[in-house]
Amino acid sequence: MTIVNAYAALSPTELLAPTKIERRDVGPHDVLIEIRYAGICHSDIHTVRGDWGPQPYPLVPGHEIAGIVAEVGSAVTKHAVGDRVGVGCMVNSCGECTNCTAGDEQYCLNGMVGTYGAADRDGTITQGGYSTHVVVTEDFVLRIPEGIDLDVAAPLLCAGITTYSPLRRWGAGPGKKVAVVGMGGLGHMAVQIAHALGADVTVLSQTLSKKEDGLRLGAGHYFATSDPETFERLAGSFDLIVNTVSASIDISAYLMLLSVNGTLVNVGAPAEPLPVNAFALIGGRRSFAGSMIGGIRETQEMLDFCAEHGVAPETELIGADQINDAYERVLASQVRYRFVIDAATFA
Amino acid sequence: MTIVNAYAALSPTELLAPTKIERRDVGPHDVLIEIRYAGICHSDIHTVRGDWGPQPYPLVPGHEIAGIVAEVGSAVTKHAVGDRVGVGCMVNSCGECTNCTAGDEQYCLNGMVGTYGAADRDGTITQGGYSTHVVVTEDFVLRIPEGIDLDVAAPLLCAGITTYSPLRRWGAGPGKKVAVVGMGGLGHMAVQIAHALGADVTVLSQTLSKKEDGLRLGAGHYFATSDPETFERLAGSFDLIVNTVSASIDISAYLMLLSVNGTLVNVGAPAEPLPVNAFALIGGRRSFAGSMIGGIRETQEMLDFCAEHGVAPETELIGADQINDAYERVLASQVRYRFVIDAATFA
Repeated sequence: MTIVNAYAALSPTELLAPTKIERRDVGPHDVLIEIRYAGICHSDIHTVRGDWGPQPYPLVPGHEIAGIVAEVGSAVTKHAVGDRVGVGCMVNSCGECTNCTAGDEQYCLNGMVGTYGAADRDGTITQGGYSTHVVVTEDFVLRIPEGIDLDVAAPLLCAGITTYSPLRRWGAGPGKKVAVVGMGGLGHMAVQIAHALGADVTVLSQTLSKKEDGLRLGAGHYFATSDPETFERLAGSFDLIVNTVSASIDISAYLMLLSVNGTLVNVGAPAEPLPVNAFALIGGRRSFAGSMIGGIRETQEMLDFCAEHGVAPETELIGADQINDAYERVLASQVRYRFVIDAATFA
Repeated sequence: MTIVNAYAALSPTELLAPTKIERRDVGPHDVLIEIRYAGICHSDIHTVRGDWGPQPYPLVPGHEIAGIVAEVGSAVTKHAVGDRVGVGCMVNSCGECTNCTAGDEQYCLNGMVGTYGAADRDGTITQGGYSTHVVVTEDFVLRIPEGIDLDVAAPLLCAGITTYSPLRRWGAGPGKKVAVVGMGGLGHMAVQIAHALGADVTVLSQTLSKKEDGLRLGAGHYFATSDPETFERLAGSFDLIVNTVSASIDISAYLMLLSVNGTLVNVGAPAEPLPVNAFALIGGRRSFAGSMIGGIRETQEMLDFCAEHGVAPETELIGADQINDAYERVLASQVRYRFVIDAATFA
């Protein structure tokens, strides 16, 4: 067991503060990672503030982790000391159920183990990436390809895979019209990935304030959803809509923007049920779907894809002492587009 | 123009009554059909009673039509006098849009023409199958294969294709677990078709009152949805759920019965929006979809499939003077499973 520096939430209402936590000894299948960067995901904030249910405190958030392998267990074959690696939203799963064997560990029938605030298979509570080191079983450690800097690699482990997976599954590519709802951390990744996949990309954002960024990142079109004309003009237009907005939106209005056989995929989950007009589905054989991150194999594929196509998040690097301010700016949509914490500042 | 006998609704609140209507002259591309049987679909009742908006009265319902070709236009190539034919829910479409050319006439971008109560492309209002004759453009006339009697063929034109199309599109077949919600006119067709396609079929009905029928028609399992244990026991079970119930049900509870990547398809449309819990979708990459009848080519495929596999609705033959009573029995779920009107009784 090792004691390492970290930043933790002590309760749903207190600011995050420096702390020390235990990391387990490196077992035969484990990898010890010296963390270099940790991204701040909106869900970190929801989780530590208890929006999604009670949490075990103190809680160290962070599931967008990039670093260097510092030590490997005796049986480790996939990684070596000095490798550039990453860890995303999960650190374990049963490995044996239908979904795990299909590469969909995120849907493990016995419950995947989240990177923080979850009971690991040995019963200990996981602690996330706002820290100097982490120990993870080798199967849940990703290789970060040359050509992606570690600071921009970190957000790919959640924001990247969360958008890449549905874009791939629902066939974003040449000849396909894809809309991205929301131009935040997830949205600005979805735009780049859909564009790199060859799709014709449209951003649907509340206002036109980020239009220039959207077009620069690969969107061909940009519309304000605050303008009711947008919904008339774009009716029946899209093969696929990826909704990155977690707030409640009028989902039936967005469904009407799909062409026949089109799919709207939610990657965020509003707390309240969304009222769906069945006529919007039936009238065009449309689908309303959901998707959660991606499996380990697909996450590796996503990292390789982003390296090959030069896809990277736009980040703002901060020190640990800026985490609490950063949370407020995330909530106020004042980040373009992802905060990344320099893990050296945890030391 | 010919005057023929029919049964019509004169207003949303009056009983249907005998009447005479005009059928257009047989144009070059038209087929005159001597109707033998017309099925009663639940949507006939919704439509004539104004549940789905105001209608042009007098209105002759009926979109499950089977009969014999009595005359063909000079340019007709697909049908000949004496042929056994059918007409379903639509009698025309633009024929030129993306969806029409893809064989999805039901989603015609210029508006498909419903079999009754719709403005045809020449501006006249269509009148349905509760009648002795109908004139339909040849492209919307289906061949009824040998081996299907005309009285059981009629309901296939709506109840058959409405369930066949989503079962095919979402891959019902060997190794797939398919649930059918509702054991009425549509449901009892879905059970047979899914079984004939090779799927493992489960019926989810409010009670077990029709269990014997369900098992006889091909279901391997039958559960009552009034029993809350059903939802616990079957969680994560199905690849595909076809919901034939138009009343509002707790759709999120049914979504949780899907396995990862599963789809729930509504073929009915409740008037009120359905509240969908996005976590139910995201937590298993599930989809909530809708489907409306099927294209002409697929309808022909369905008829051929039913003939080949001995799939047929269970019908109760009535005379025209029993239509109003039959409507009440449909509303009270007291028909097993489809009323068919003997068109000789319109004479």
